[in-house]
Amino acid sequence: MHEIITFGEAMVRLTPPHFQRLEQARSLDVEIGGAELNTAVGLVRLGHSVAWASRLPESSLGRLVAARVREGGVDDRWIRFSSDGRCGLYFLEVGAAPRASGILYDRKDSAMSRVEPGMFDWTKVLAGAKWFHTSGITAALSTGSAAVTKEGLLAAKAGGLTTSFDLNYRAKLWSPEEAGRVLAGMMPHADVLIASEGDAKTLFGVGGETFAEVAKAMCERFGHRTVAAGRRDASLVWKDRVGAVGYHGGEVFETPTYECEVVDRLGGGDAFAAGLIHGLLEGDFAKGLAYGAAIGALKHTVLGDLPLVSKDEVEAVLAGQGVRIRR
Amino acid sequence: MHEIITFGEAMVRLTPPHFQRLEQARSLDVEIGGAELNTAVGLVRLGHSVAWASRLPESSLGRLVAARVREGGVDDRWIRFSSDGRCGLYFLEVGAAPRASGILYDRKDSAMSRVEPGMFDWTKVLAGAKWFHTSGITAALSTGSAAVTKEGLLAAKAGGLTTSFDLNYRAKLWSPEEAGRVLAGMMPHADVLIASEGDAKTLFGVGGETFAEVAKAMCERFGHRTVAAGRRDASLVWKDRVGAVGYHGGEVFETPTYECEVVDRLGGGDAFAAGLIHGLLEGDFAKGLAYGAAIGALKHTVLGDLPLVSKDEVEAVLAGQGVRIRR
Amino acid sequence: MHEIITFGEAMVRLTPPHFQRLEQARSLDVEIGGAELNTAVGLVRLGHSVAWASRLPESSLGRLVAARVREGGVDDRWIRFSSDGRCGLYFLEVGAAPRASGILYDRKDSAMSRVEPGMFDWTKVLAGAKWFHTSGITAALSTGSAAVTKEGLLAAKAGGLTTSFDLNYRAKLWSPEEAGRVLAGMMPHADVLIASEGDAKTLFGVGGETFAEVAKAMCERFGHRTVAAGRRDASLVWKDRVGAVGYHGGEVFETPTYECEVVDRLGGGDAFAAGLIHGLLEGDFAKGLAYGAAIGALKHTVLGDLPLVSKDEVEAVLAGQGVRIRR
Amino acid sequence: MHEIITFGEAMVRLTPPHFQRLEQARSLDVEIGGAELNTAVGLVRLGHSVAWASRLPESSLGRLVAARVREGGVDDRWIRFSSDGRCGLYFLEVGAAPRASGILYDRKDSAMSRVEPGMFDWTKVLAGAKWFHTSGITAALSTGSAAVTKEGLLAAKAGGLTTSFDLNYRAKLWSPEEAGRVLAGMMPHADVLIASEGDAKTLFGVGGETFAEVAKAMCERFGHRTVAAGRRDASLVWKDRVGAVGYHGGEVFETPTYECEVVDRLGGGDAFAAGLIHGLLEGDFAKGLAYGAAIGALKHTVLGDLPLVSKDEVEAVLAGQGVRIRR
Amino acid sequence: MHEIITFGEAMVRLTPPHFQRLEQARSLDVEIGGAELNTAVGLVRLGHSVAWASRLPESSLGRLVAARVREGGVDDRWIRFSSDGRCGLYFLEVGAAPRASGILYDRKDSAMSRVEPGMFDWTKVLAGAKWFHTSGITAALSTGSAAVTKEGLLAAKAGGLTTSFDLNYRAKLWSPEEAGRVLAGMMPHADVLIASEGDAKTLFGVGGETFAEVAKAMCERFGHRTVAAGRRDASLVWKDRVGAVGYHGGEVFETPTYECEVVDRLGGGDAFAAGLIHGLLEGDFAKGLAYGAAIGALKHTVLGDLPLVSKDEVEAVLAGQGVRIRR
Amino acid sequence: MHEIITFGEAMVRLTPPHFQRLEQARSLDVEIGGAELNTAVGLVRLGHSVAWASRLPESSLGRLVAARVREGGVDDRWIRFSSDGRCGLYFLEVGAAPRASGILYDRKDSAMSRVEPGMFDWTKVLAGAKWFHTSGITAALSTGSAAVTKEGLLAAKAGGLTTSFDLNYRAKLWSPEEAGRVLAGMMPHADVLIASEGDAKTLFGVGGETFAEVAKAMCERFGHRTVAAGRRDASLVWKDRVGAVGYHGGEVFETPTYECEVVDRLGGGDAFAAGLIHGLLEGDFAKGLAYGAAIGALKHTVLGDLPLVSKDEVEAVLAGQGVRIRR
Repeated sequence: MHEIITFGEAMVRLTPPHFQRLEQARSLDVEIGGAELNTAVGLVRLGHSVAWASRLPESSLGRLVAARVREGGVDDRWIRFSSDGRCGLYFLEVGAAPRASGILYDRKDSAMSRVEPGMFDWTKVLAGAKWFHTSGITAALSTGSAAVTKEGLLAAKAGGLTTSFDLNYRAKLWSPEEAGRVLAGMMPHADVLIASEGDAKTLFGVGGETFAEVAKAMCERFGHRTVAAGRRDASLVWKDRVGAVGYHGGEVFETPTYECEVVDRLGGGDAFAAGLIHGLLEGDFAKGLAYGAAIGALKHTVLGDLPLVSKDEVEAVLAGQGVRIRR
Repeated sequence: MHEIITFGEAMVRLTPPHFQRLEQARSLDVEIGGAELNTAVGLVRLGHSVAWASRLPESSLGRLVAARVREGGVDDRWIRFSSDGRCGLYFLEVGAAPRASGILYDRKDSAMSRVEPGMFDWTKVLAGAKWFHTSGITAALSTGSAAVTKEGLLAAKAGGLTTSFDLNYRAKLWSPEEAGRVLAGMMPHADVLIASEGDAKTLFGVGGETFAEVAKAMCERFGHRTVAAGRRDASLVWKDRVGAVGYHGGEVFETPTYECEVVDRLGGGDAFAAGLIHGLLEGDFAKGLAYGAAIGALKHTVLGDLPLVSKDEVEAVLAGQGVRIRR
Repeated sequence: MHEIITFGEAMVRLTPPHFQRLEQARSLDVEIGGAELNTAVGLVRLGHSVAWASRLPESSLGRLVAARVREGGVDDRWIRFSSDGRCGLYFLEVGAAPRASGILYDRKDSAMSRVEPGMFDWTKVLAGAKWFHTSGITAALSTGSAAVTKEGLLAAKAGGLTTSFDLNYRAKLWSPEEAGRVLAGMMPHADVLIASEGDAKTLFGVGGETFAEVAKAMCERFGHRTVAAGRRDASLVWKDRVGAVGYHGGEVFETPTYECEVVDRLGGGDAFAAGLIHGLLEGDFAKGLAYGAAIGALKHTVLGDLPLVSKDEVEAVLAGQGVRIRR
Repeated sequence: MHEIITFGEAMVRLTPPHFQRLEQARSLDVEIGGAELNTAVGLVRLGHSVAWASRLPESSLGRLVAARVREGGVDDRWIRFSSDGRCGLYFLEVGAAPRASGILYDRKDSAMSRVEPGMFDWTKVLAGAKWFHTSGITAALSTGSAAVTKEGLLAAKAGGLTTSFDLNYRAKLWSPEEAGRVLAGMMPHADVLIASEGDAKTLFGVGGETFAEVAKAMCERFGHRTVAAGRRDASLVWKDRVGAVGYHGGEVFETPTYECEVVDRLGGGDAFAAGLIHGLLEGDFAKGLAYGAAIGALKHTVLGDLPLVSKDEVEAVLAGQGVRIRR
Repeated sequence: MHEIITFGEAMVRLTPPHFQRLEQARSLDVEIGGAELNTAVGLVRLGHSVAWASRLPESSLGRLVAARVREGGVDDRWIRFSSDGRCGLYFLEVGAAPRASGILYDRKDSAMSRVEPGMFDWTKVLAGAKWFHTSGITAALSTGSAAVTKEGLLAAKAGGLTTSFDLNYRAKLWSPEEAGRVLAGMMPHADVLIASEGDAKTLFGVGGETFAEVAKAMCERFGHRTVAAGRRDASLVWKDRVGAVGYHGGEVFETPTYECEVVDRLGGGDAFAAGLIHGLLEGDFAKGLAYGAAIGALKHTVLGDLPLVSKDEVEAVLAGQGVRIRR
Repeated sequence: MHEIITFGEAMVRLTPPHFQRLEQARSLDVEIGGAELNTAVGLVRLGHSVAWASRLPESSLGRLVAARVREGGVDDRWIRFSSDGRCGLYFLEVGAAPRASGILYDRKDSAMSRVEPGMFDWTKVLAGAKWFHTSGITAALSTGSAAVTKEGLLAAKAGGLTTSFDLNYRAKLWSPEEAGRVLAGMMPHADVLIASEGDAKTLFGVGGETFAEVAKAMCERFGHRTVAAGRRDASLVWKDRVGAVGYHGGEVFETPTYECEVVDRLGGGDAFAAGLIHGLLEGDFAKGLAYGAAIGALKHTVLGDLPLVSKDEVEAVLAGQGVRIRR
């Protein structure tokens, strides 16, 4: 009985410390990350009860991921442990301008990519829940995972839940054509869409002069009630400006931007999704956008993909409290 | 026989490495810190002979603190080791904008908070010294420590020493009312006061349009000869601008500010006090303010609370030598 | 709805790495530990559903403990977060013969020591459970915690649960007289007692030539159904021989001993308790003793107080599989 | 133009530090290892010129492996970089009695497993060389790698090189039946065989009362000139006794055993192979066996799979110099 | 048979981690560095075949340096191992504004400083090569090393190679007078000179209003065909702007500057030299200057003195690709 | 005014962590050590007031050593800081049987080796002291240091102090002939000699069947009152048995031996000297020998060369308290 169910893959992330290149590393820091898991943790930090549905191998790596899921306060009961498939990995090299951070994915043939329709009893998983969240990354893993993603969306809609979908196009996983075709079949079942203008254009050919135009076009085409996107500057690696923009009820909203000293930018968009859902669960889109921008900005200050911040900290950012130490 | 005696508490500081949150930490870095000890170390680095009077538990933690006091070149002979009381601790989470650094104090019931009048033979401790320095933090620990702080100030004045007092109001330790009442009884015995306008207002209701007005009012009310304060910007965590302002002989002085890449901002104010005292011991307030600003700025570049810099480095900052590597 | 409830305190453990003395440490490794929590984790590893009842401060340290409790697979719903009291700490120096490992406790005034009767709604906590486990350490923390320990035992008996109690006398917490007096009032409510001959003698004056005599005398005096104890050699720090002895149904049982290369001996006795309870829940004392000895031995190979081993590994030890790498 | 060519796979090895379980690790130490590469490094340390033929992905992980190959003094010119296939990984948990060390392989679909006949121009690779070495692990990776292993053996024999083959049966890679069938086709082309009695029995049904009987039977069946095997005790993880036994020219040889304090036992057998080949290249089997036992024992004292020891150190062990520090 | 030969010293570099002062360090990070070796590694990364000629002690430190040279892809065959002389060391303290980074050299009496004419058979070393590179640091080590530097330059010119020389005046090694005198004898043999206006003035009294004037004057005096210099801002430690300026064929060229988040600025100039030589080997000075600026900027983002970047990364900087993560 | 003065050199010790070979190290642990400093620290731990006379370079490395001297509780006032000479270094590789630990000294041309007679005002240094201690290592550094060692011994005898001398022959520093010749001139001024039978034979040709015979012969030849030596087994690296033997007043004494799990064996003999001097200062040779053996054994359990143990711990070993954790 959880308020929110998210569905997706998590991987073990391995990062050379102190800006080392992978080829010179003698040790790697171990974190875990996965878009929908990151969002789940963010929602727990904002006070919600959340479970994460996924598939992991029955191995010490699978147990590592599950242990950290629990550590993050997310219920692990809907993790299916499998005897087939491996644990997805990714290697991160942290950059510094003018060198971008680099990611080497090693996720092929993961347990989650081998998921098949019927493996999750969605009625049970979604029982009593209000919200279902997933993303285009999960759909991208394999034909099976795309099918199960759609299966989950349909079950959620059938069960009366609100659904949100983070488009998150990953060029390393599939082509724009394939992604566009597969995701177009899911869009009509997503009440809330998180998508940048670029992805809307790349995948669906939906363009426009402004975010508002693109968002409106997406709503018209797919029936979304809400479209939102994070904003950032990204001209440096160690510093950024983070905010958000959204379209809801025919109106455009935009948050202030926050200057961020960047400890770790991964998971920023997923944290934004958590703030957004948090507000929408209270029926307040503007609040969701604001909380999303603030928790997204705060995520940039936390090591790892998970937004390990408190609701108090989010509200301190919203209140503009500044960075003086309180003592 | 030391030129300078400082009196206060030191704690063991425990910091998660690499911007980790405390809850995710698997190891903690160990430093020590305490306002008057930090100042003592700064004075040693500037060439003075200094002892630090304090109380520590007879335990491995107490020995850890004492070992580092000696490492810092400060004489440990006036540390009283007690069989009661614990070693004060504090946990530091290093922030990144827009998240402030956070401090969790765990200092209650420390050996130092259990100090009582008569435990220090001030005549012996102060014999041959020229200067006595303490702060409002020490006074805040307990009724006993407030009494001993005052005892020390009175003995210093009776012995002909110059006294300095860093107001340092800590809202986590006591209320403005209690602090104002207790500290008001000590102010008349402080020749040199280090205090921000905010603390003067909060504790004593002494306000004004400018630093000069506040400082003048404090001198008039309590008889200080000198009032000084550090200045900083504090809009980011990893970068700051650091300077100082002072009031002496009816005149206001202000230093240039220095752009600091911040390794560790804790102890910056205590380092400033060291520079200030250094100049005043030579009878030169302007020099003290300048050295205070420079060593305070340099402290921001040093890991830990102790200002482990050299006099040469302070003078290089004053000379504007810049950051090119000399080779 | 958990099969087993354990009740006690957990502390943050801070250990200098690589056999350093505390006074030379520049970093400390962070683990958590607490007798009944350790046992809870052991039971989870053996396949049971377990919740741990305790009290922690609402602080980043309290959250650290709770996060690791969840990571260990133990349900955290019966942790009461308090605004008073601190988080208990202990500092461990790892020894090497002829130097014993040393522990510096800093647990006074912990949130758990401030627990008071009525704070736990035992009917709810114990609903649906079969087993309740606690220890003499919990009873030793304060008058309040002793009262709540007894409260829990009585509620468990009233609810039809089996109860187990690990005597665990801690000379640093209370005198033999006080411990004997307080614990004597709890013994009649403990179905299963874990106790060494030494503690039985020290606390209750119950002696004998053999373990069997002592155990029999305890059963006669207090009505226990079962008494068991771990066995070890302890003549070196890095190597030990670990086994167990028990008395049940008028019979004495003894396990083989296992040669252990010791990574971390803390929590070995608590892991033993987990194995013992595991067997007894299946109604098989001999199995419990055997599993207890094996998981206790394995615990010595795991860093930290928690027995992070698998049931397969326990059974491999019982089967004498040896230490060749399987590949 | 290298004296020796070895052929096989290398993987990146990831190990939690300080006996941590993988599931509790927050960092992993990075080494590389692969049977024939380990042997190649051992031969370099004994003064030979060696190249290693293999296949690696064109990625930062592949470059990491190649950089360490060069660091080890082995020529990297016969590494084929591929755009397909991943970099093999394995995760090592270091044990302590009674818990064995554990290895989790994640090597499926590696670049090397996708090797196909014709990818190596063996005439070029082997030009000017005297010795070719490979093992049953390489043959086990895939049908393609088995075919290329045989291709290499045949080319070596055709080119007049001596060939050595380390049987190294890996139950996690293939069944005894499949291994027996595939390897039986290679045995006739192996002049020197390294094999335990157990593997000879499991794969080829060749048994006997003593090593001599088994070795003799293997020579009769497959035409080997020489059979050798390492010996160890393996009743503890941190300590072992290491030696070797061999059959050559109808005679059995046995070395003394060396008491080893074990830093890292992986690669011990591969180091033995290096010592053996070193002696045989000088036409002295007894020397080879002795050097093999000594460098094998020394390997146990070196972190990582590679035998980073010097010829002087090997000869000090053979001379029984003991462990007093020379100063 | 290498395309390029560089000649110089490499030292072991020891750096306290995390901005610690040397006096507080409990561990030191180990890198290696040396101007001409750094340039050699840069050239390898850009696709060239390079060997580095040098002299190292036959010790574990000498072997450490050689192992890393090989790791960097540079051929180690022209390293002469000596029984005399030590391994040069340097200790680096990483600064933060307003504190400059500091270097403590401990390189006296190194094996390389004891080099003597005749120790290198230059005809063999340079056989088949197109380019020879060395610097004023090598010339500064001792009379012997100055003589061998000149010997190498003369042999290179006699062999028809192009020569480049990085002036690199080091005030800690010799006086301007001595440096000017010794280096003036080498300048006529340097086709390509890398030199700042400051060094030209200090050593040779060659001044001018602009870089062009100075470069032109140097060419006229010494017969260089090309003069180039890196450009940077250096007002902060953690951030810089990096570019380059050059004079060739009577024309002045200037590159754009790149904003760098500085991980490690050491070796930036040596990386620049690599890019410059890369372009000149293709006969394209403008390309060399551009590649030099880009690889020099990228070097600032890499830990250690060696420019461990790829040609792709250099070209991404030249193409202005920005720092968004590609996924 | 110190009870004891020791005189000698200290070096910075750099050790690869976790049994790494130096050539594979990416970081080095930093300790300091020096025979007479180690002894000084041992004496401080046993309750004495001690100063250490030495010479260090005025550099960050010299300051590092001085800071640690103070940390160890030893007075640093007789350290002469010089502008010439470097800081001695040594690199330690920790072994494992059958590989011995290895030491690479890099101490030539140290500030201490450049000491000259007259640099220490021995009258001032020794004023008020009872004991002077030095060793054959100090005498071995250079002609100057030999002269100053003798100068110190003569001044001590003239001042009525007791003198002790640890023979400590270092074959890497000088030949037996030179050592024998130089040290023979100092022996008559050493009241207490610490020497193994081997060194007595090697340096002075003094042999015998037993320790007693050798000691007696040394006393007869040089006039020592007391001769003592540590005993150990040294057949493994990680385990040893440590004791002591002595000759005093015509009698032979021998202590029990202690089984040691070895964390770090360096400085064991110097700790023994501290225990010995401690007893002799109380006029009790047997006590000195016993304390020497116990603190020497305990030193093996402490990281670094300094015997960071407490008097309580020494007495616990003497009382045979064993290694059970007290709690």
